[in-house]
Amino acid sequence: MKGNQQQLPKDFFLYNASTARCKSYVNMREVTERFCLKPGEYVIIPSTFDPHKESEFLLRPFEEEETEEEKQFRAIFQQIAGDDMQINANELRTVLNRVIAKHKELKTEGFSLESCRSMIALMDTDGTGHLNLQEFKHLWNKIKKWKLVFTRYDTDKSSTISSFEMRNALTEAGFQLNNQLYDIICMRYANENMELDFDSYISCLVRLEGMFRAFRAFDRDGDGIIKLNVFEWLQLTMYA
Amino acid sequence: MKGNQQQLPKDFFLYNASTARCKSYVNMREVTERFCLKPGEYVIIPSTFDPHKESEFLLRPFEEEETEEEKQFRAIFQQIAGDDMQINANELRTVLNRVIAKHKELKTEGFSLESCRSMIALMDTDGTGHLNLQEFKHLWNKIKKWKLVFTRYDTDKSSTISSFEMRNALTEAGFQLNNQLYDIICMRYANENMELDFDSYISCLVRLEGMFRAFRAFDRDGDGIIKLNVFEWLQLTMYA
Repeated sequence: MKGNQQQLPKDFFLYNASTARCKSYVNMREVTERFCLKPGEYVIIPSTFDPHKESEFLLRPFEEEETEEEKQFRAIFQQIAGDDMQINANELRTVLNRVIAKHKELKTEGFSLESCRSMIALMDTDGTGHLNLQEFKHLWNKIKKWKLVFTRYDTDKSSTISSFEMRNALTEAGFQLNNQLYDIICMRYANENMELDFDSYISCLVRLEGMFRAFRAFDRDGDGIIKLNVFEWLQLTMYA
Repeated sequence: MKGNQQQLPKDFFLYNASTARCKSYVNMREVTERFCLKPGEYVIIPSTFDPHKESEFLLRPFEEEETEEEKQFRAIFQQIAGDDMQINANELRTVLNRVIAKHKELKTEGFSLESCRSMIALMDTDGTGHLNLQEFKHLWNKIKKWKLVFTRYDTDKSSTISSFEMRNALTEAGFQLNNQLYDIICMRYANENMELDFDSYISCLVRLEGMFRAFRAFDRDGDGIIKLNVFEWLQLTMYA
């Protein structure tokens, strides 16, 4: 609909699916929701819980204003992503490798396509198989934060992080693990000399972050235990 | 100990850990176990369940004889692995890429180091971070079988497998999944044209195999539901 001031015909609702809606439809006096919408015109439809009732509504839309940095970020993202404003694994690989190539202090062979696919799976909260601006921003902020930790804990300035340094780095990055998990992580992500280069380090942290998030999301009653059947198990672990 | 015919001193047991032992120590008349041991001399110590009892034992060691093919396979493995008879991710990458380079009908960029690390994690049943001969043989036989499926289901001879063909290939390879899982798998492993090249296809199947196995191992009571705390969850998912 483009600047249409008239009452919307019934057909409009037959042929246009809703873009966003409240998570649960309950008879509350106040409902607050947060949506991320593409630029465009939208119709907002408030309704009473019981049908055939009349009521007054107070609608308060808030929107965040972008800082100068965010505007620049959006412009760069748009340039990579194109009109669909979504990036795929290849595009993510281009961005990440372009950035780390500038940092000579980071010893790395660059991110493989496989690592980027895994990163997309772990950061793709809306399940599209791509990263939108929000998801990419989230990943980007994490990488920026984790890069600082990497350089701080690379105490011997080897441009890689040893399995010993990795423990401290993980703690600093906010992950409290047990010894067995530290060992498993080094076995999986370190090279023959028990060192992690930057891309392995980031891949590891992205997965840790994703796996912690998946656990919390599944632990709905918050008792620290999740119960999974085989399909739920595969859904969580195959897309990672 | 080297060909020592005398009674072993107490110290021997203080300084030599056992190489293999029965899984559970119970008072059964007959115990059968299967071990995979490195070449060497071993001491076998039968014991009564209750202490200070005397008894007679009948010990029957069986060993499998290698076929000619297996001998060749062992020789190749030894060549790659060196004296430790274990291969790491780099060595695995060399082998796999050397083999697939010979198959011109398989369109692939080759296996990345990241894929090989993941494969080792999923096939490494004894948790050493490397593959021993048995584990590599298991992986190798799977890849051989899955390659046949790949070429059979690549019906349009595109040298890649489309997401549509992938469903049939997965069923043929013995994986019964639901629609949601097929979608997730394609999103994770297919490229922009919704096609899987050979290395993505194999990475996907190795992970499926590993995840099914992990689920079965954790579902000890066989009720089809696993319960995990956060550390168990991370142990299973970070080493994958």
